[in-house]
Amino acid sequence: MSNHPKAARPDYSIHDLIANRWSPYAFDGRPVEQEKLHSCLEAARWAASSYNEQPWSFILATRDNPAAFNAMLECLVEANQEWAARAGVLMLTVTSRSFVRNGKPNRMAEHDIGLAIGNLTVQATSLGLAVHQMAGINPSKARQVYAIPESHDPLTAVAIGYVADPKAEDAFAERDRAPRSRKPLSEFVFTGTWGTPGV
Amino acid sequence: MSNHPKAARPDYSIHDLIANRWSPYAFDGRPVEQEKLHSCLEAARWAASSYNEQPWSFILATRDNPAAFNAMLECLVEANQEWAARAGVLMLTVTSRSFVRNGKPNRMAEHDIGLAIGNLTVQATSLGLAVHQMAGINPSKARQVYAIPESHDPLTAVAIGYVADPKAEDAFAERDRAPRSRKPLSEFVFTGTWGTPGV
Repeated sequence: MSNHPKAARPDYSIHDLIANRWSPYAFDGRPVEQEKLHSCLEAARWAASSYNEQPWSFILATRDNPAAFNAMLECLVEANQEWAARAGVLMLTVTSRSFVRNGKPNRMAEHDIGLAIGNLTVQATSLGLAVHQMAGINPSKARQVYAIPESHDPLTAVAIGYVADPKAEDAFAERDRAPRSRKPLSEFVFTGTWGTPGV
Repeated sequence: MSNHPKAARPDYSIHDLIANRWSPYAFDGRPVEQEKLHSCLEAARWAASSYNEQPWSFILATRDNPAAFNAMLECLVEANQEWAARAGVLMLTVTSRSFVRNGKPNRMAEHDIGLAIGNLTVQATSLGLAVHQMAGINPSKARQVYAIPESHDPLTAVAIGYVADPKAEDAFAERDRAPRSRKPLSEFVFTGTWGTPGV
């Protein structure tokens, strides 16, 4: 298990790629190599989805194009803009509302985006990158800026990049030094009936 | 990269734990070791979630308790019951509708369950297990069988187990020999404006 101060402290053994993932506020402003970005997107591509619908689209902005990067930054809620400005890549995730096969609503679209971004995050971690996801976006602004059709809905934003020196004396690095916490398994894994611990 | 017939054929390099994941129909009926199951659940536990809400609950049924296992099997749609009967573990995922912190609706609950199950799946893959997720459940039956409160909603079922011999001459193994397909990145990764390929 990693010695990184932010590594999980699991009750049961878990893979390093899970234990060493966390969501930093303090990125160091370095760009992400195109090859690594492609691998992250490719990992998302191979996620499972209901009826193999692949109900995800992604809109990318990389910091080598400052105008495009800033345009996406402005689609985030203000509280996210300051720290996300130092990510290497910003990405909007967009769901498709209905199945292509039959036009029916896809009630798994959001869930399946979670699976895809989960894959992306594992791949990023394996390449030394960090990922911080945000629910805090301005969906109507995103729809307008990127001409997202009514058949699709902006869902989240994802910041990808390199973590800043964890000892840095800035407010974001300080925030990143807070310990991580999770509910114990016994509070959410049940068996037989609701509320009966299954572990 | 693995030589398994079902391994992804990626256009860009991806981690083996992503490439070697697929959703089998042909499980071999072996139970899953408790230690491995705990690691899978622990991996889910450390997923990211909006405001660290951890909006996931899981209800477990393992095949060492046939009555409990069959009760959960009957919460699946019929098409899933036959193949899922040979999994080692069945699990229902359940979302909580609202944030504990303020009672407001959590529009990220389904998405965050996807992240958690993505973690579980990576952990399972690393332990030689396979995972097959199902949207096809009977939510009202599940609610009744497990006394799931109105504040929570059953979302998916998850089968975890060992894959059967891929050369077996049964219908499920045959189904598992079909090639996997995914849209190319250029169809769903955009930049600048909707529809402009970003890769």
